[in-house]
Amino acid sequence: MISRKSILSTFCSLLLTLLLQGQNKIVVFQSDFGLKDGAVSAMKGVAMSVSPDLKLFDLTHEIPAYNIWEAAYRLQQTVPYWPAGTVFVSVIDPGVGTTRKSVVLKTKTGQFIVTPDNGTLTLVASSLGIDQIREIDEAVNRRKDSEKSYTFHGRDVYAYTGARLAAGIISFDQVGPELPKQVVSLPFQKASLEGGKLKGAIAILDVQYGNIWTNIPNDMFLQINPQFGESFHVAIYHDGKKVYEGIMPYSQTFGAVAKGKPLVYLNSLLQLSFALNQGNFAEYYHVGSGNDWSVEVSRVN
Amino acid sequence: MISRKSILSTFCSLLLTLLLQGQNKIVVFQSDFGLKDGAVSAMKGVAMSVSPDLKLFDLTHEIPAYNIWEAAYRLQQTVPYWPAGTVFVSVIDPGVGTTRKSVVLKTKTGQFIVTPDNGTLTLVASSLGIDQIREIDEAVNRRKDSEKSYTFHGRDVYAYTGARLAAGIISFDQVGPELPKQVVSLPFQKASLEGGKLKGAIAILDVQYGNIWTNIPNDMFLQINPQFGESFHVAIYHDGKKVYEGIMPYSQTFGAVAKGKPLVYLNSLLQLSFALNQGNFAEYYHVGSGNDWSVEVSRVN
Amino acid sequence: MISRKSILSTFCSLLLTLLLQGQNKIVVFQSDFGLKDGAVSAMKGVAMSVSPDLKLFDLTHEIPAYNIWEAAYRLQQTVPYWPAGTVFVSVIDPGVGTTRKSVVLKTKTGQFIVTPDNGTLTLVASSLGIDQIREIDEAVNRRKDSEKSYTFHGRDVYAYTGARLAAGIISFDQVGPELPKQVVSLPFQKASLEGGKLKGAIAILDVQYGNIWTNIPNDMFLQINPQFGESFHVAIYHDGKKVYEGIMPYSQTFGAVAKGKPLVYLNSLLQLSFALNQGNFAEYYHVGSGNDWSVEVSRVN
Repeated sequence: MISRKSILSTFCSLLLTLLLQGQNKIVVFQSDFGLKDGAVSAMKGVAMSVSPDLKLFDLTHEIPAYNIWEAAYRLQQTVPYWPAGTVFVSVIDPGVGTTRKSVVLKTKTGQFIVTPDNGTLTLVASSLGIDQIREIDEAVNRRKDSEKSYTFHGRDVYAYTGARLAAGIISFDQVGPELPKQVVSLPFQKASLEGGKLKGAIAILDVQYGNIWTNIPNDMFLQINPQFGESFHVAIYHDGKKVYEGIMPYSQTFGAVAKGKPLVYLNSLLQLSFALNQGNFAEYYHVGSGNDWSVEVSRVN
Repeated sequence: MISRKSILSTFCSLLLTLLLQGQNKIVVFQSDFGLKDGAVSAMKGVAMSVSPDLKLFDLTHEIPAYNIWEAAYRLQQTVPYWPAGTVFVSVIDPGVGTTRKSVVLKTKTGQFIVTPDNGTLTLVASSLGIDQIREIDEAVNRRKDSEKSYTFHGRDVYAYTGARLAAGIISFDQVGPELPKQVVSLPFQKASLEGGKLKGAIAILDVQYGNIWTNIPNDMFLQINPQFGESFHVAIYHDGKKVYEGIMPYSQTFGAVAKGKPLVYLNSLLQLSFALNQGNFAEYYHVGSGNDWSVEVSRVN
Repeated sequence: MISRKSILSTFCSLLLTLLLQGQNKIVVFQSDFGLKDGAVSAMKGVAMSVSPDLKLFDLTHEIPAYNIWEAAYRLQQTVPYWPAGTVFVSVIDPGVGTTRKSVVLKTKTGQFIVTPDNGTLTLVASSLGIDQIREIDEAVNRRKDSEKSYTFHGRDVYAYTGARLAAGIISFDQVGPELPKQVVSLPFQKASLEGGKLKGAIAILDVQYGNIWTNIPNDMFLQINPQFGESFHVAIYHDGKKVYEGIMPYSQTFGAVAKGKPLVYLNSLLQLSFALNQGNFAEYYHVGSGNDWSVEVSRVN
């Protein structure tokens, strides 16, 4: 006879299992695959085969092909908004199959990033900090029977490992051996303030609207004590050559200037930015982004 | 000693909790952000941080920048197909930071729409009806520590409030004070029937295929008693100037006419529409959409 | 009085229900609708209205309009990576409303595909095998009150039926009557090996990168015993006319050749493919895909 006690204890463990299934279990994918073919879906199928309890999301799959800098930027832009325990799988991997390391970085804020260590981690490593980095041991953390395929680690290694980590099938320790706390870093110009003049790079374009996002942080801008409505002198350089120069107010809303007029504002990451109200600054003035684009901002006397 | 009764009651409440977790909890996002950067993902991260039990979906993020009319149309096109209790977060917000109100509208069919009240609610308010509107009280319904950022209410206010509402952390009442049952409405031409002639506007293009969707509803069309196979005279005007005129049959399927030939049909929202079978009507005849595009349809005698 | 036994048995059935809710319940959508409008979201709303416990994913919605071949290819590319029980809803349906059959195919590996039988099943039927095909009985498997709409079976029939099947509301038998195990097949050139020369078609382009994917499988390639680093002669023909000829090494990684140089490799489906390292082969040499594009590959002596 089955005792009432054992029935109750079975209930308990079932309930516990069900409650645990309510945990984070979030995986967020990023790639340069685009959405036109089956590559993203193959990665998600692998994750769902690991555990149908996972919750899968996308950061973006429209990173320009092979553009590691932009991959790094999009991680920095979004990782902090996801809860601790979230696993990011980022696959911009021009060196697939070469000697670049496959790693999982745990940030100091508790998110995990599964990626080739090719520069993708440049910005999150510095802004969120490295708690630990481990190299993926492909002897155990690789999809079964995938050895013949050597061009799609996103599916066979990264999605598979990220899913197993998020589902709790492997612990972070079981990813593979710990590495020194340093990542492959892309070179980038730092922001500076000298004699009241702010200098920085154009980190990225706000592509949808054509706004210009610099890497000058709010904290540095505050040091020159800006007031809303005050005018600032802005110059933009490409390879050292001036391509734009103008005066624009520091505004709290786009609507504070007339349609088509320029303004200085803080973007959603609290970095100094320029825009045309309901217009496309980048397109209109042929401005791009990257390390060879720099800006100078100073108060108009 | 813990009594059996209290164990059972604990079970009961646990089960209830689990069952309640099986509720709707659906959030659907719409924006003009595109999918190339991290903006959509930041909003979803905020929602997942509110509650990992939410189920997040997208309506579209490819609304043309600042195009409030199209945002309004896409809501009308999809809201009715989602279950009561679903929370839509729609962020086409050219006036971010200005005095436009941030609201949550509950339709008479039980869906919620979180949005700036800037015209986005024009069509659902009239087609689904307003059960209640409340203004978001940002003193309580705003992401902690987001006060410095004033350009991304989608993340800091709308996604956050929508997620809390869908997760049941706040009730609808707790969104903020109730407003009068009226919304900011974009002007739009109404459909009419006079002397056997149907008149209306081109509400939108079926962009993927180039079909022309008017705002003439099936009910009005039925008043002239159309039969499948009958020919109709169709004229299309831009700012009052005729840009297309033709005769085409009212067809039940695209395949009822030869490839490339025009037809009149009812679209998936049961509104009068024109198409070329496996062709692109809008592109071929340079037809656009909006309030300055009108159509006239009448039976061929 | 309610006996303890009946309370326990109620618990048991509740728990069982909860546990069963933890099953697969996965639906994956594919279409040529694009993501700019509300069509995909309307389908998902219908599915969520069927059961909020479903997990909804996308294969792609960027299939070129009416391109049934590409729909067939994307299914072949991804279905095998999803767990048994997964329900695919594929809607590339130029013949909507005509006499093409609406079917559900169960593969021998246990996935279901809900689709018009118009060629979409060409490749999965042959690569994964047909376990059973059933015709959708629209008398029961059609969204209530959708009879007036005849142009959006994706929403009214396919999403609805796929969701009900995935949720366990209907069994596979209840889809409708069983059909003979054959599907409408698009013609396609088979790969062959004669006298050391491999011949095949360009099945598809790896659109994001411009790589050329043939239909020559690894197994056939292995018969000529290729070694990494060995050179191969590659010719590409359009309608029988040569448009490209070159010598390139068989490489295990893209990085094995200089940037911009061509290589032969096995794609992620283990089919013979050509690429330029970090370049766009298809664009550079104006190469397309389809049955009128053929290739010849042979070892350089």
